[in-house]
Amino acid sequence: MTLDSIQFASRFDGVSGSAIREIFKMIAKPGMISFAGGNPALSALPDEKVAELAQKALKENGKAILQYGATEGYPPFLESLKAYAEKQLGCEVTGILPTTGSTQGMDLLCKALINPGDVILVENPSFLGNLQCMNLYQAKLVPVESDENGLMLDKLEEAIIKHHPKMLYTIPTFQNPTGKTLAADRRQPIAELAAKYGMVVAEDDPYRDLRYAGSPIPSIKSYDKEGWVVFLGSFSKIISPGLRVGFMVGDPLILRKCTIGKQSADVHTANLNQAIVDQYLRQDLLPAHIASICQSYKAQMNAMLDELATFPEGTRYTRPEGGLFIWVELPAGIEAKAMLEKAVERHVAYVPGTHFFCDGGHDNTFRLNFSNSTIDQIREGMKILRELIEDAIK
Amino acid sequence: MTLDSIQFASRFDGVSGSAIREIFKMIAKPGMISFAGGNPALSALPDEKVAELAQKALKENGKAILQYGATEGYPPFLESLKAYAEKQLGCEVTGILPTTGSTQGMDLLCKALINPGDVILVENPSFLGNLQCMNLYQAKLVPVESDENGLMLDKLEEAIIKHHPKMLYTIPTFQNPTGKTLAADRRQPIAELAAKYGMVVAEDDPYRDLRYAGSPIPSIKSYDKEGWVVFLGSFSKIISPGLRVGFMVGDPLILRKCTIGKQSADVHTANLNQAIVDQYLRQDLLPAHIASICQSYKAQMNAMLDELATFPEGTRYTRPEGGLFIWVELPAGIEAKAMLEKAVERHVAYVPGTHFFCDGGHDNTFRLNFSNSTIDQIREGMKILRELIEDAIK
Repeated sequence: MTLDSIQFASRFDGVSGSAIREIFKMIAKPGMISFAGGNPALSALPDEKVAELAQKALKENGKAILQYGATEGYPPFLESLKAYAEKQLGCEVTGILPTTGSTQGMDLLCKALINPGDVILVENPSFLGNLQCMNLYQAKLVPVESDENGLMLDKLEEAIIKHHPKMLYTIPTFQNPTGKTLAADRRQPIAELAAKYGMVVAEDDPYRDLRYAGSPIPSIKSYDKEGWVVFLGSFSKIISPGLRVGFMVGDPLILRKCTIGKQSADVHTANLNQAIVDQYLRQDLLPAHIASICQSYKAQMNAMLDELATFPEGTRYTRPEGGLFIWVELPAGIEAKAMLEKAVERHVAYVPGTHFFCDGGHDNTFRLNFSNSTIDQIREGMKILRELIEDAIK
Repeated sequence: MTLDSIQFASRFDGVSGSAIREIFKMIAKPGMISFAGGNPALSALPDEKVAELAQKALKENGKAILQYGATEGYPPFLESLKAYAEKQLGCEVTGILPTTGSTQGMDLLCKALINPGDVILVENPSFLGNLQCMNLYQAKLVPVESDENGLMLDKLEEAIIKHHPKMLYTIPTFQNPTGKTLAADRRQPIAELAAKYGMVVAEDDPYRDLRYAGSPIPSIKSYDKEGWVVFLGSFSKIISPGLRVGFMVGDPLILRKCTIGKQSADVHTANLNQAIVDQYLRQDLLPAHIASICQSYKAQMNAMLDELATFPEGTRYTRPEGGLFIWVELPAGIEAKAMLEKAVERHVAYVPGTHFFCDGGHDNTFRLNFSNSTIDQIREGMKILRELIEDAIK
């Protein structure tokens, strides 16, 4: 029998793979100015420091690092991670699990909770990697409306009452893809709604340290009395995505299921990678490193916003206080997906906004990343995009 | 609403977590002689070499290593891995995917193929980590009988005709937990049965390089004409389990689904870990390293077999040609699980055999690992086990 007759699992029905990952491949050529992806700047990646820390960790504890570890995490890292997370979240941490990037945290949480057909409430647009994850668990995704301050509480409660969701998936700080931040005064009510209705909140917060203006806002998790909120953290944006180290903070009851799920997902997150981040935290290198990254990213974001101010009338865009992304809405009728081909011809790339909507559409939107381009590249690339939009309007 | 009212996904019904991982925690105290687990010897873990290779890789390509990578793998590693795999499998490799340990390979394969209720044929006993994986995908596991030469072909075809399985899961070489090897002349027929009936074969082969007697046997994959066989490889037993690097070899049609599944599982296997194994392969360090490991493991296995020869009459055990495990069957009526408590009191540990059977039972069996104990420890620990068995027989 030839392999053509193979039957794949029905979880793949309608799932065709990450659009971003496909765009990455399309634009992987020299000279490309990429506003696609969510990559840190190469200059923000501490390669020499990581080499030094890897050396140190392997010298001090090499045998244990190369041996099988506990699914629950590398013991020294659990210690430094807990201290970091408590500071980060502004609350006591009763359960924590290192994950292979925060992407795995989302996967494990869905594994623990989601039966096919279960409803997950999502921001619309939202992070497409995790939309794909939820689709592979055959969840029913129901969008909840946001305004400029993030999720609207009345719409959220309405959706909870109507759809009895198992989970709310939210990126509250410098959201991907919009750059929006959930206002401080909406955070406690969300934790309360979760407890009132028995709904898990997945608080995906990888960008919170990348703040260029305004003041830090408490996590939703910090208002969580009953344990319904699970916080997904990441070191991808502040140390290195290539190391694949993230973590989950949540009630031990939920994390126990995630741990069992992780046993057969990858046994444990590689010890060396946990040990490197452990060293980073233990030597308190993060504050200075984040300050330095933020200084550059702020200048890059402002350069991009300056360029956007010169775009044709009718172009709308967000003005984030941090993170990696600006969200652009073109005058109706301009198709960002069609324009991408022309942009790539001229060596500029972005991600069409439609991919971020669980129900598609919104063809006149796109997402811009500013962290992975120099200010000169931002000026040059944005000029090209402006020209393409002007052409499209004519 | 308190968290007690949370409803976990039904995939967890009846799944209580890896017995081995729980036993690990129970025995994590100083002075324990552990025949549980499948850990390499600490002396077999090349910590100084890995430190050197990590340094070299980060120096040469640090920025790319710390940046996001492709789900499909770190490019230099793909090159060296393909060459390694072709030698290892004895056939051309048309599709390859680095995974976060071969455990992830199994997870991705189930994700790609298994709907709840789909039948997977398994050896009985089999590796419990992957039994748990298949259970979490809600597969129906159907055992197929083995004799001393591995899976019995007539029983296998009978089961295929009766159960229309989606997949066969087999560990053909130095099987976990029995140490048995599927005979050379059964391998081509299995590849042919797979193609005849349209069944995927998951060939999980992490131990094949650890051979202490006899000659290498071709992989099932090397007889695969139509692409139904997926080979799961691992560097855990020959370099380091803590690094979490494995790989899948299979038809691009199947690997494409696995790649999409991996996008939302962990985006990609950490680049640094791929780069370290790449350096290991590229510098051709593996042959000498494996030769050195095998020399020690062979002596350890023989010491354990020598001790077993002195065990009470009625004790049966396998005599493997390689791998990490010996399988012991006690006289009927002796409960290996009850005996474990007494053994742990006397600082000796093993894994009761019942955990490896998809349908339980076989309470008089247990698995012994010899790689992670010195010869003195093996003598001492086996003496204690012999005494406990003698006491149990009285």
